[in-house]
Amino acid sequence: MEKVVLIKSLYRNSEEHLSKKVKISGWIRTLRASNAFGFIEINDGSFFKNVQVVFDNKLENFKEISKLPINSSLKVIGTLVATPDSKQQFEIQATEVIVEGMSQSDYPLQKKRHSFEYLRTIAHLRPRTNAFSAVFRVRSVAAYAIHKFFQEKGFVYTHTPILTGSDCEGAGEMFKVTTLDLDKTPKTEQGAIDYSKDFFGKESNLTVSGQLNAECFALAFRNVYTFGPTFRAENSNTARHAAEFWMVEPEIAFADLEDNMELSEEMLKYVISYVMAECPEEMDFFNQFVDKGILDRLNHVVSSDFAKVTYTEAVEILKATDKKFDYKVEWGIDLQTEHERYLTEEHFKKPLFVTDYPKDIKAFYMRVNEDGKTVAAMDLLVPGIGEIIGGSQREERLDVLTKRLADLNLNEEDYWWYLELRKYGETKHAGFGLGFERLIMYITGMSNIRDVIPFPRTTGQSDF
Amino acid sequence: MEKVVLIKSLYRNSEEHLSKKVKISGWIRTLRASNAFGFIEINDGSFFKNVQVVFDNKLENFKEISKLPINSSLKVIGTLVATPDSKQQFEIQATEVIVEGMSQSDYPLQKKRHSFEYLRTIAHLRPRTNAFSAVFRVRSVAAYAIHKFFQEKGFVYTHTPILTGSDCEGAGEMFKVTTLDLDKTPKTEQGAIDYSKDFFGKESNLTVSGQLNAECFALAFRNVYTFGPTFRAENSNTARHAAEFWMVEPEIAFADLEDNMELSEEMLKYVISYVMAECPEEMDFFNQFVDKGILDRLNHVVSSDFAKVTYTEAVEILKATDKKFDYKVEWGIDLQTEHERYLTEEHFKKPLFVTDYPKDIKAFYMRVNEDGKTVAAMDLLVPGIGEIIGGSQREERLDVLTKRLADLNLNEEDYWWYLELRKYGETKHAGFGLGFERLIMYITGMSNIRDVIPFPRTTGQSDF
Repeated sequence: MEKVVLIKSLYRNSEEHLSKKVKISGWIRTLRASNAFGFIEINDGSFFKNVQVVFDNKLENFKEISKLPINSSLKVIGTLVATPDSKQQFEIQATEVIVEGMSQSDYPLQKKRHSFEYLRTIAHLRPRTNAFSAVFRVRSVAAYAIHKFFQEKGFVYTHTPILTGSDCEGAGEMFKVTTLDLDKTPKTEQGAIDYSKDFFGKESNLTVSGQLNAECFALAFRNVYTFGPTFRAENSNTARHAAEFWMVEPEIAFADLEDNMELSEEMLKYVISYVMAECPEEMDFFNQFVDKGILDRLNHVVSSDFAKVTYTEAVEILKATDKKFDYKVEWGIDLQTEHERYLTEEHFKKPLFVTDYPKDIKAFYMRVNEDGKTVAAMDLLVPGIGEIIGGSQREERLDVLTKRLADLNLNEEDYWWYLELRKYGETKHAGFGLGFERLIMYITGMSNIRDVIPFPRTTGQSDF
Repeated sequence: MEKVVLIKSLYRNSEEHLSKKVKISGWIRTLRASNAFGFIEINDGSFFKNVQVVFDNKLENFKEISKLPINSSLKVIGTLVATPDSKQQFEIQATEVIVEGMSQSDYPLQKKRHSFEYLRTIAHLRPRTNAFSAVFRVRSVAAYAIHKFFQEKGFVYTHTPILTGSDCEGAGEMFKVTTLDLDKTPKTEQGAIDYSKDFFGKESNLTVSGQLNAECFALAFRNVYTFGPTFRAENSNTARHAAEFWMVEPEIAFADLEDNMELSEEMLKYVISYVMAECPEEMDFFNQFVDKGILDRLNHVVSSDFAKVTYTEAVEILKATDKKFDYKVEWGIDLQTEHERYLTEEHFKKPLFVTDYPKDIKAFYMRVNEDGKTVAAMDLLVPGIGEIIGGSQREERLDVLTKRLADLNLNEEDYWWYLELRKYGETKHAGFGLGFERLIMYITGMSNIRDVIPFPRTTGQSDF
């Protein structure tokens, strides 16, 4: 018996298969039949589009086939025939249809439009719909594009730890990890919980960022990146926050903020271009049904030279406009989404780096500028979404970093290894973080983070 | 000023650079100097090998350079000169040496051999040594090879969740995840911990496998894979167990155990070949200093046709040999490492699939064979290590699966969505799991899992 051909191959190499016998396997997306013949749209998971199968009552199991519930799985043998006059470029005229697995008539995904909210309740089935088939294939291809981009530049992919001792990061919104029996936690003589009895012998949390660990590797391998899950126990029920999400964090040595901006611009353009080239059917779907105009917007990003402005200049621009903001602009504030979107969408009309933010609103590890008031930070803002990347040059001067820790009441001993990176052969270095889900929302036009994660975890929600 | 050239480029494209002015930046690995001239071995992180820089007292900072501590960072401008009579193929004759960052004289990695045990205590610095530079670059390249292999076949990379409700998996060795205040956990009226107050409104754990979720996606996309961290709270202090490790889990629809074996064999050969081709310097290092003969062993794996034997036949082979085992062989036992290694190293002398294990020692989701006693499971055993891959065809028959759950006292309601995959368009499907660290140990010859993970987490150990 001939080998099964993937539907992707029928579309991408149709010349090779036309007028020949082919064998496919897949699931019924739609089926309609009269007494004499019928049509089945089959999807085999390899491709966004279905292929149409025509069958007639010469098949001995014609009656059985005609009544199959949606999403039953089939093997079909037949001839691939060009159909230049119809909507499809070709169809399969079946000579044999074998039922592999019957579906049941209460299958929840009958041919009608379902709301994304409803589909979240059947996350185990929703990748079978057009929208989620497109989203999750794009997610996969974008993830690969990120690896390809960095690997071809010789960056070392570094698996930074997920489980971390609680010493080094602000513990406010972290998940605790434990193997203690919560019904009878061991206690110290002072009555506190005795974490020396816990799995790691101390309090442990889920990571919020791999950056500090990645810096260790950048100072050995020069150019590294992480790509893995990170966690926030933020009790916020918004369309943009999830408790578990994936981050990409490159870290580059012998590099300053300019190099960092150049790298992030190049990466973003590469990933978007790669997805548009590899997933044209999916991108057309988003452009038609999810977010009209998204293709124009992405093409614009890819062909723009990103603008650059300092925070101080950006504040002047925002103060000078007649536009009313909910949140008043003064030097020293953290820019809000309304400000970011005005800058990138209305003022600059293209992607925009805002640099050199006030020291007091940024993290301890960002390099202090000559003015003593600002740090070498950068945020990349894009039309339609606002901030998509945040990064900085890192403080490499041991004395300045030590003073920053003290000013922020952070305990120097907790950072002994991070400080040692500055003692032993420090160089300028920089890095940034890209929230992978935000990128996927940006590329697909999907507006809720729950709809770009296979099985999303948010406040009160960890089903499947 | 000319652009910095990576040392990798000096080696890989030396023709392009020879007799020309080049600029590099990197860290001092060794330095020796007389009154007239000196030699520096510089590594810039881009490549396993160093480049030698020769400098003399015509440099105005000659004295300063001569006394630099190991691992200070430098920029060097000079001419790349072929040195056909010496150990190195070329060297840089420096015209300018700029100190970027001084190291300090108590730098722990002076030029001598350190034990792997000691190096674990300075995990932030150990990637600067030859051994760990080689290990972690190979880890990165192998990870990329896995993505490349599956993506080029059209597999969809699926990020399965890390945080899971506790319903679906044996909870014995899982880490609990919580945001409850452990000092005053909320209680129900019955006095139990009130998990409805926890972040997800119920007990949550860290995942031990993405398989069940991956199956949902395989039944939509046909061919999918996961590659992400998984967790075991196993209190065992061995060279092969870590609490946090990365797993690769492909899942393929319209596929049986034969397809599964074929895929795993092809994948393993691909990844090993890719690493040997991309990292020849690192592999030579392992072959010389870590595990003599490893290149022969890997070449043998790549060129072998893997053998296949059923569990029942394997038991007969083990009973027939004169070899003494610590653990007695009877039909029904789980094979021990000593048995596995005898089969693959002494009897078959090549990689070996053992299939069709007794039902009672395998998981509920494995497909029950016609005999009713065995399941369509497979373990891949390789010389030198034993089991490296485990997988199975999945039970696709709703009635059989439901009965298995009942036999094992598992609660059908907890598996409602997993069972629905069998109700709605089931097909044969299969998959396997590859422990990524075990693969890296196998490729590098490193014998302790702590030495193939950037920042390992094991019982009592979560530093950095």
